[in-house]
Amino acid sequence: MTTEQWRARVAGPDDSDDVARLLHDFNTEFDAPSPGSAILATRLRDLFAGEDTFAVLVGEPAVGVGLVTTRPNVWYEGLVALLDELYIAPGTRGQGAGSALLELLVETCRQRGVDLVEINVDEDDVDAQRFYRRHGFSSTEPDSEERAFYFRMELN
Amino acid sequence: MTTEQWRARVAGPDDSDDVARLLHDFNTEFDAPSPGSAILATRLRDLFAGEDTFAVLVGEPAVGVGLVTTRPNVWYEGLVALLDELYIAPGTRGQGAGSALLELLVETCRQRGVDLVEINVDEDDVDAQRFYRRHGFSSTEPDSEERAFYFRMELN
Repeated sequence: MTTEQWRARVAGPDDSDDVARLLHDFNTEFDAPSPGSAILATRLRDLFAGEDTFAVLVGEPAVGVGLVTTRPNVWYEGLVALLDELYIAPGTRGQGAGSALLELLVETCRQRGVDLVEINVDEDDVDAQRFYRRHGFSSTEPDSEERAFYFRMELN
Repeated sequence: MTTEQWRARVAGPDDSDDVARLLHDFNTEFDAPSPGSAILATRLRDLFAGEDTFAVLVGEPAVGVGLVTTRPNVWYEGLVALLDELYIAPGTRGQGAGSALLELLVETCRQRGVDLVEINVDEDDVDAQRFYRRHGFSSTEPDSEERAFYFRMELN
């Protein structure tokens, strides 16, 4: 299939189970911890009821998901969005589902008044880096050559 | 002065002008665009009235600022905090003000129910990377060797 043939859609509260299943599969595939689909689905229902989180699904049944949180930022009049997760199930990769998903995701950001979309991409994942560059993302600010690394610290 | 001698405090709405002045100085020093202190102060008053943004100041008069936004995240029960900016005015660097600021900032995150603190650090800024490592930050997830790059796309 090509990008045009994939139908992406913004997830509603009723899609929480599908979103949770895909996020759980994502972390399981990459050996990252997951609290399990049931807990994720409960959290997602709460998150989707608020204004800070949305998800995009692609395929019927859904084979891919993108999860976004938005927040205010002092440098922008509008919101800043962080693409927390983007996952396409194995077996459907390289067929345009990710592009269809990302295009709707960015369009949804626009509609929600987002001025800047951010994402952290693994250093060695050059395929993902190429994918995001092709869709307009950059690893540097305008007029800069300098990339930035993502640092983190868990509390407790 | 040592870390112990610097007094850091969480900024209130009345500190918006001080926070705005330091953020404007920050961007001016590093040739980044700034809408100017007045617009920043107006935005900060709005942001401080909400629950998603807080700032920490150090020194009297203030010579350093840290600005944090928090958001929900599906992988954590609590919040995720992003350290959007940390600035110490030239002339007072290397004297412990940044450490005092960061310690209060992390403690304030804990009090606000944050499970994860994130920050993006420039690739070539090894001093900043060492500073954050010394305070418990890591450029990789547990059990991983892989760093991540920060990607961005402005809309409009």
